[in-house]
Amino acid sequence: MSERFVSERNLRFLLYEAFDAESLTQYPLYQDHGREIFDMVLETALKMGKELLRPYLQEMDRNPPRLEGGRVRVHPAVGQFMRACGEGGWIGANAPYELGGQQLPLLVTSACRFIFSAANYSASVYPLLTAGAAHLIESFGSEELKQTYIPPMFEGRWQGTMALTEPQAGSSLSDIVTRADPDPGGGYYRIRGQKIFISAGDHDGVENVVHLLLAKIPGGPPGVKGISLFVVPKLRPEPDGRLIPNDLQVTAVYHKLGYRGAPITQLSLGEEGDCRGYLVGEPHRGLTYMFQMMNEARIDVGLGAAAIASAAYYAALDYAMQRPQGRRLSSKDPTLPPVLIVEHPDVRRMLLFQRAVVEGSLSLILQCALYADQIRVLEGEERKEFQLLLDLLTPVAKTYPSEMGILSVSQGLQCLGGYGYCDEFPLEQYYRDARIHPIHEGTTGIQGLDLLGRKVVMHEGAAFRRFLDEARKTVQGAKSWKELHPYALRMEAALERLQDVTAKLVVIGTEGDVERFLADATLYLELFGIVAVAWQWLHQGIAAQRGLDARSLLEGDQRFYRGKLHTMRYFFHYELPKVEGLAMRLLEADGLTVEMDETLFWD
Amino acid sequence: MSERFVSERNLRFLLYEAFDAESLTQYPLYQDHGREIFDMVLETALKMGKELLRPYLQEMDRNPPRLEGGRVRVHPAVGQFMRACGEGGWIGANAPYELGGQQLPLLVTSACRFIFSAANYSASVYPLLTAGAAHLIESFGSEELKQTYIPPMFEGRWQGTMALTEPQAGSSLSDIVTRADPDPGGGYYRIRGQKIFISAGDHDGVENVVHLLLAKIPGGPPGVKGISLFVVPKLRPEPDGRLIPNDLQVTAVYHKLGYRGAPITQLSLGEEGDCRGYLVGEPHRGLTYMFQMMNEARIDVGLGAAAIASAAYYAALDYAMQRPQGRRLSSKDPTLPPVLIVEHPDVRRMLLFQRAVVEGSLSLILQCALYADQIRVLEGEERKEFQLLLDLLTPVAKTYPSEMGILSVSQGLQCLGGYGYCDEFPLEQYYRDARIHPIHEGTTGIQGLDLLGRKVVMHEGAAFRRFLDEARKTVQGAKSWKELHPYALRMEAALERLQDVTAKLVVIGTEGDVERFLADATLYLELFGIVAVAWQWLHQGIAAQRGLDARSLLEGDQRFYRGKLHTMRYFFHYELPKVEGLAMRLLEADGLTVEMDETLFWD
Repeated sequence: MSERFVSERNLRFLLYEAFDAESLTQYPLYQDHGREIFDMVLETALKMGKELLRPYLQEMDRNPPRLEGGRVRVHPAVGQFMRACGEGGWIGANAPYELGGQQLPLLVTSACRFIFSAANYSASVYPLLTAGAAHLIESFGSEELKQTYIPPMFEGRWQGTMALTEPQAGSSLSDIVTRADPDPGGGYYRIRGQKIFISAGDHDGVENVVHLLLAKIPGGPPGVKGISLFVVPKLRPEPDGRLIPNDLQVTAVYHKLGYRGAPITQLSLGEEGDCRGYLVGEPHRGLTYMFQMMNEARIDVGLGAAAIASAAYYAALDYAMQRPQGRRLSSKDPTLPPVLIVEHPDVRRMLLFQRAVVEGSLSLILQCALYADQIRVLEGEERKEFQLLLDLLTPVAKTYPSEMGILSVSQGLQCLGGYGYCDEFPLEQYYRDARIHPIHEGTTGIQGLDLLGRKVVMHEGAAFRRFLDEARKTVQGAKSWKELHPYALRMEAALERLQDVTAKLVVIGTEGDVERFLADATLYLELFGIVAVAWQWLHQGIAAQRGLDARSLLEGDQRFYRGKLHTMRYFFHYELPKVEGLAMRLLEADGLTVEMDETLFWD
Repeated sequence: MSERFVSERNLRFLLYEAFDAESLTQYPLYQDHGREIFDMVLETALKMGKELLRPYLQEMDRNPPRLEGGRVRVHPAVGQFMRACGEGGWIGANAPYELGGQQLPLLVTSACRFIFSAANYSASVYPLLTAGAAHLIESFGSEELKQTYIPPMFEGRWQGTMALTEPQAGSSLSDIVTRADPDPGGGYYRIRGQKIFISAGDHDGVENVVHLLLAKIPGGPPGVKGISLFVVPKLRPEPDGRLIPNDLQVTAVYHKLGYRGAPITQLSLGEEGDCRGYLVGEPHRGLTYMFQMMNEARIDVGLGAAAIASAAYYAALDYAMQRPQGRRLSSKDPTLPPVLIVEHPDVRRMLLFQRAVVEGSLSLILQCALYADQIRVLEGEERKEFQLLLDLLTPVAKTYPSEMGILSVSQGLQCLGGYGYCDEFPLEQYYRDARIHPIHEGTTGIQGLDLLGRKVVMHEGAAFRRFLDEARKTVQGAKSWKELHPYALRMEAALERLQDVTAKLVVIGTEGDVERFLADATLYLELFGIVAVAWQWLHQGIAAQRGLDARSLLEGDQRFYRGKLHTMRYFFHYELPKVEGLAMRLLEADGLTVEMDETLFWD
């Protein structure tokens, strides 16, 4: 099996050269840190990835979680990793010191999460979910909830989850029916209902599980405005410190295509009438709160998708650099020895495609992490501007890596031919694992509606304009280099195309034809994703060009920058043209899927 | 599980309305047949699909073939189906009467193969491979080989295979090293070597296995010109009728992502020096012969891919017509009951995409089958013309369904959200099964080289010109209907685009820059595939329009034709525009993947 799953050089390039992580240390929140600490954190993450995660990738896939006597049994590597994350301060890495956190920038920890997910995606979600759940308590929970739940979660002893979906309410959260009845005088709510598709909803790698759960308090407004958020532990802590069962059963573990190292569970709450939930924040504001965790989780999904694609890329690259097969197209003499397949243009195209998707996606995700850091350290108008950008780009950073990650892994598999289809190599597992990403934390369809129906039009298009400004700044910057100038022009044209399409669709929406406005929102998101990643490639191109311009370069550095620029060129020549067909379709906006009668599907 | 896996109505539409299967009965070869017989054949295939194949789809996936004591154990359904195919005359369905065949048109049996593959792809390959191997013996084998091997193969008692690939020779057949040493006076060759990835290379559902195997006779020319074709049975028939072991061992069965109901095996031949092979035709002409089977198998791969996509489409459609979730985009009132997801434009888009891929692919494949029939019944110039078309379209009919089938199944899975990822529904299996198609019988990269590097340029572009003529005839035909006129114009424009791209690339090739000519052959194939399927959609549009114009229509027929036309419109509005980005890229022909130094991948 290929040993390599990420490029350390590329991570450093993005952190320090493309996104200038060190500049964050000028703000009080991050002032204790510096390049040495970031380097150390990155090295530790790589070491953990190699030693604690990677070795169990295949084992965890082949021995998926089992439900035994009401308990979910997982691979021992899970508990080991959770404890290591607790001891190393990884779960609270971004939290403030006073809560036991490390106050590390999201930019830096996102790079580390990328490493963990590339090493073993299933294993990486356990601490990720715990961190997200703890962050939700940190943001909106009472002092008591914080003191009770955050320490054991940060220590990796208690698992966190997000419990939203119900059998009748998948994408449509307004239809959840899990009830939370206030207990008179008890300071808690009695929870009763069912949740499905709950990741890490139970397992024996931890002492307890803490569900951040959506439920409805009877008498509240209908729909999403009547949803409240609760902390619902599997074992509830009594005042004396004991943990007692909280009437919460795991009723099933799903058998899945991939992502098999993590249990996706079905939960039954309150069958005995004694499942206690503790309200987070105010009643009926639960969905607003949950969106904090959901938005973080969405970007983490993009990160996970890019990470699996990274592991697949290096497995394919390894193979391509070792496997002899065939001859150059220009010299088919069968008496010559065969060449390595990396010499075939079509194999190079497949490899460049993968690298373009992986590094373009990662760049977009780190861009979002940087915005999140800027939101944390800045105030007033500046903060608002970055919040707009982050809100706008969240569905894009979730979806581009998820959708393109699948194609990228598929091209990796294809590089190995028949071997890619067999389980001697990890590609077939990556192919299965990657398929979850366009589904969980909001399907691609939902992300499209979020982008076009909400984010693009909010505040009269302020976020969209801000995005165009940012991208045009990059275009201006790129024009200073002769080598980048043609790509800056292509980027400019793509931004205009995006603007035309957006204007056309928004007018339809403004005129009240909501169905026609949003019918192809998924394709709009696809178009937006390509443009956004092109922008990130141009941004990386500038950083690479700067690197090349610096004097006394090491040979390895030169090669890296030149490879980076070549991949950028690949993106602009092969991927960006896809904008044309998409724009052509979107500009038609003819309502072909809206006006059709569904009986036309009967035959 | 969804019960439906094909549309019988659509099969009849294609056979009788789009391709006029009955007109084939004017030729002596098919004169005994007629619509009633074709209908009966189709109904029997549907019944077999439902009763003998579909019930074992999941079981065969979950209990894949095992190698035990040198024998490959498969699910009992395999032997049962092979015997049923033997008894029903399915394996020799296209063969002449004098060999025990049925002389059925390929057009009709292709529709039946589609049914079998949609019901259970893994099970469907056993008789398919046997038929292909028998056809090879029929075309090029001696009388003795025919008499010995064809009857038990047609009876479904002996399995046929194609044994090409070796560990060091995957896509590059010129590098095979399996030896065939003539036995002085024995009338046979001693075979020694290894073969890998041999589908149905051994199993206990039959009495014997017959490998159509490529090997090199020492002293022959180097490369593909030194390859000969042999019949190599697992058990060789002695003059007295006994079957004795032929020194041929199965050394491994591969563990695969999907397609798990069929064993893909590794073979070792002649370890004891007593593996006998019987030459087919002349020495050193083996690859030419094998191309007959390979070309048939390539179209069958496309057929299998479209068939899996068909099964996935009906599973997704079933779900979409039963699952309530969310509300219309134009009325988000949470107090209203949820609507069925088939009412959401994005779900309709995903369903139309699938239907467009499935029915467009199937149409292209049946078009090829019709050409093959015309080659069988016609002579002289006419025959040559159809041969050109079939040669040109073979890589397209293999690849468009294979590549788009994956995306189609993936969209089917997406329609089910989280459930699509779980094994309660068949989508996750289809997703795994479908991934084999861009790999086996020549990868997509190889098909691209075949199309652009060989087929488009052969006979000074005669096949390509012939294709343009055929497509333009369809365009002319479509212009007679007001409703089809705009699509005829779009088709015309797409053909021009394809012609421009082809001209540009061919000039580069003619100038001798073979690497730059072929660097993006895969993308050229993608472009060609979209144009070819658009042509088929226009062809289907004409047949549907004719159907609608006919008087006294049943309501169900009206709906079918309108649904067909709507799907055609989907293809032209959503799929055909992809031509733009591809053409833009291909016209650049800048050698971006040719001139790069592979050390740029190191970082």
